[in-house]
Amino acid sequence: MLFFTQCFGAVLDLIHLRFQHYKAKRVFSAAGQLVCVVNPTHSLKYAPTRCAAAQASTEQGILPPCHHHEAVHDAQLVPCTCPLFSCPWEGHLEVVVSHLRQTHRINILQGAEIVFLATDMHLPAPMDWIIMHSCLGHQFLLVLRKQEKYEGHPQFFATMMLIGTPTQANNFTYRLELNRNQRRLKWEATPRSILECVDSVISDGDCLVLNTSLAQLFSDNGSLAIGIAITTSKVHSSEAEI
Amino acid sequence: MLFFTQCFGAVLDLIHLRFQHYKAKRVFSAAGQLVCVVNPTHSLKYAPTRCAAAQASTEQGILPPCHHHEAVHDAQLVPCTCPLFSCPWEGHLEVVVSHLRQTHRINILQGAEIVFLATDMHLPAPMDWIIMHSCLGHQFLLVLRKQEKYEGHPQFFATMMLIGTPTQANNFTYRLELNRNQRRLKWEATPRSILECVDSVISDGDCLVLNTSLAQLFSDNGSLAIGIAITTSKVHSSEAEI
Repeated sequence: MLFFTQCFGAVLDLIHLRFQHYKAKRVFSAAGQLVCVVNPTHSLKYAPTRCAAAQASTEQGILPPCHHHEAVHDAQLVPCTCPLFSCPWEGHLEVVVSHLRQTHRINILQGAEIVFLATDMHLPAPMDWIIMHSCLGHQFLLVLRKQEKYEGHPQFFATMMLIGTPTQANNFTYRLELNRNQRRLKWEATPRSILECVDSVISDGDCLVLNTSLAQLFSDNGSLAIGIAITTSKVHSSEAEI
Repeated sequence: MLFFTQCFGAVLDLIHLRFQHYKAKRVFSAAGQLVCVVNPTHSLKYAPTRCAAAQASTEQGILPPCHHHEAVHDAQLVPCTCPLFSCPWEGHLEVVVSHLRQTHRINILQGAEIVFLATDMHLPAPMDWIIMHSCLGHQFLLVLRKQEKYEGHPQFFATMMLIGTPTQANNFTYRLELNRNQRRLKWEATPRSILECVDSVISDGDCLVLNTSLAQLFSDNGSLAIGIAITTSKVHSSEAEI
């Protein structure tokens, strides 16, 4: 009898372990919300030259190729570089999603509200956690970056970019929400266009910023859950109605 | 005719200027919400020795006078020091409010939801903006501090302290909200007790933290409006019902 009880216990343990493994490794749906487990990728050295060159030429009135998009009638044909600045890829907006999926193996998730679960938050900076989010007929790129803006003091920066033009981005509002340990932090803003510099958005601090101690308070077992919701911007939808 | 038109214009200008002056200098009620204009006070040198001594004695198992409060039956008779660390005042919780009003000239406001309008955000760190907020039968202290945690990079830290014991503080939730330029930032947490160290709450970063560029985005003409709401904590109210 004892043998059978022990066998039954072992089987239960195995099922539990299998479930834990499944939970940790896959995208799953919990309580109606899609949870995506995102593993970190080591941030390669950023190429400030490209970003700085683009900014300098804009200041001098010379628009870099990326900034000609307003003159292009079909937004999908706007010339575009890869938003990950370590990558030299150049192409059009219509193919940047497939480039990000195939070359950088970034997952794409469907749904109006999702939970982004960034793992291994303790890993040293620089580190990126990136996913694509498909909703309201567009694709968005969520970038969470751990970076040492001040030496020895890593911080976390989270922002949402639309894979589209700045004009299209103005039609949306995104919300990032952290909720744990009797604390809640919400950030709402208009997404920036992928044609802008991810690095400059983060270095300007115009995004959700967390210091390490706050990130620890919101983390559970080294993972940070960020609730993401995207809606159509009220101002622009009411303007569209007029 | 031209003379009269000019005179009328001048009178209108005077009325407008008078209104602007009135708006900037007084506490007024707008759209049902109480707006309090808070001028900065230069942060005096903090006294880390007192704070550090209190922490060290706690670690060694020797409780400083402030931490004997749980053994005192009447919370109002708990021994307490002034939360502004430049001040050597010592007394009881029941008289700390009158001390803050009389000695430090800190305003006290009534109402469940108020707007804290901090002026002259550009002034160099260290700088404090402080008010007291009376609601739900208790007094709260809101501290907004501009401080250089990393040299040459001033940041803004906002926290809410209950003028009461940590046990009483657990019964409440406070919300700070910034809303401007198509961006919204909300911070919700349990207030800390005034018997704890304001400085350590801020240095731990367990509060609303803003970098300078984000503070500028949320500011209007050098003033930062922070919406404040205090509610009874849901967890505790449901526990109380049981």
